[in-house]
Amino acid sequence: MKFAVLGTGSVGQTLARKLVDLGYAAIMGSRSADNEKAAAFVNEAGGLATTGTFAEAAAIADIVIVCTHGAATLDALALAGAENLAGKILIDVTNPLDFSNGFPPTLLPAYTQSSLAEAVQAAHPKARVVKTLNTVNAAIMVDPQRLSEPGDIFVSGNDADAKAQTIDLLKQFGWPDPVDLGDITTARGTEHYLPLWVRLMGPAGGANFNIKIVK
Amino acid sequence: MKFAVLGTGSVGQTLARKLVDLGYAAIMGSRSADNEKAAAFVNEAGGLATTGTFAEAAAIADIVIVCTHGAATLDALALAGAENLAGKILIDVTNPLDFSNGFPPTLLPAYTQSSLAEAVQAAHPKARVVKTLNTVNAAIMVDPQRLSEPGDIFVSGNDADAKAQTIDLLKQFGWPDPVDLGDITTARGTEHYLPLWVRLMGPAGGANFNIKIVK
Repeated sequence: MKFAVLGTGSVGQTLARKLVDLGYAAIMGSRSADNEKAAAFVNEAGGLATTGTFAEAAAIADIVIVCTHGAATLDALALAGAENLAGKILIDVTNPLDFSNGFPPTLLPAYTQSSLAEAVQAAHPKARVVKTLNTVNAAIMVDPQRLSEPGDIFVSGNDADAKAQTIDLLKQFGWPDPVDLGDITTARGTEHYLPLWVRLMGPAGGANFNIKIVK
Repeated sequence: MKFAVLGTGSVGQTLARKLVDLGYAAIMGSRSADNEKAAAFVNEAGGLATTGTFAEAAAIADIVIVCTHGAATLDALALAGAENLAGKILIDVTNPLDFSNGFPPTLLPAYTQSSLAEAVQAAHPKARVVKTLNTVNAAIMVDPQRLSEPGDIFVSGNDADAKAQTIDLLKQFGWPDPVDLGDITTARGTEHYLPLWVRLMGPAGGANFNIKIVK
């Protein structure tokens, strides 16, 4: 199984490292084939990690994960190419946050009445988009068991098989029981939660936390 | 201690009943003095409960709680009268939700880059606004101990004394350790969480749930 990881920031590097640790091939995709962060990662991660442009990574992969800044997500996927995404599971872990006025960010105005995940699905109707992992930071995404308890992780998407395969991957990451919220419009819930997430960092004593449903 | 409860829906009735149970006077405020829901509540709740217009209720009260629909909050407070709110703790439990397109609601467009709580504070600069309880339904607001564990409840506000008194009230409601998120702008976090809250009702099996920070 080959994964394209589109985005070379901390989320992309953390996800790619976890995938390699699990024995999967991970192609780090970036805007240019000579991206320094991607090259450094590959040097360190060894044989299962490679690099390429967004399009090269998406073309080779069985499953594509997009983890750019939210403001860059649609551009990155356009560069990846609709033909390279068609029929594939496209896991969207991005958030539509606007950091132009500093921290804490606000929601990007374009997505306050809907969601970035819906825009991704609309731009790539043949891709099978699953929104997940956008409610925790990179370290928790791939190792929720480091918390006192993992809390809940959510999936949203229109394709049942794509969600089932994503949930299987999440379980390999350490999430015991991912919560299926419903179709891709339910990503509005997890994306709009981010303005609370950024304000829980203080009470939580850092970014390594999650929320758990109590009933 | 006298509380004005502005709003006669399920949240208002539940809060007023709890306040009466705790031995406080509760004045149910509504648009008209002959509101049927308020009158029915008072008949049932007994001596500590009374009714009045928004202005009458706010004028008599030591602490004002606003629990109208979010779209009606600023109007209700305008009718309550700035002079009747000046200097008082104004607990805002409302959410800026737009139900005009059905369920689930979206965020009211006017508040997606800020919060209704900030608009309330701006409209009534002499009131000491505290946002809280807007992240749970009415039954949980006043009885979090009915859950397997209460989870976390949040307060936002600019006035430290107002937050401390509100936290004391929350403890009487059964919240062991309310989380102070910071100034009134932090209400953006709890208000924008609502699109997730409405989508957790399915997985949670109903509206009686909360979230807990795990770290």
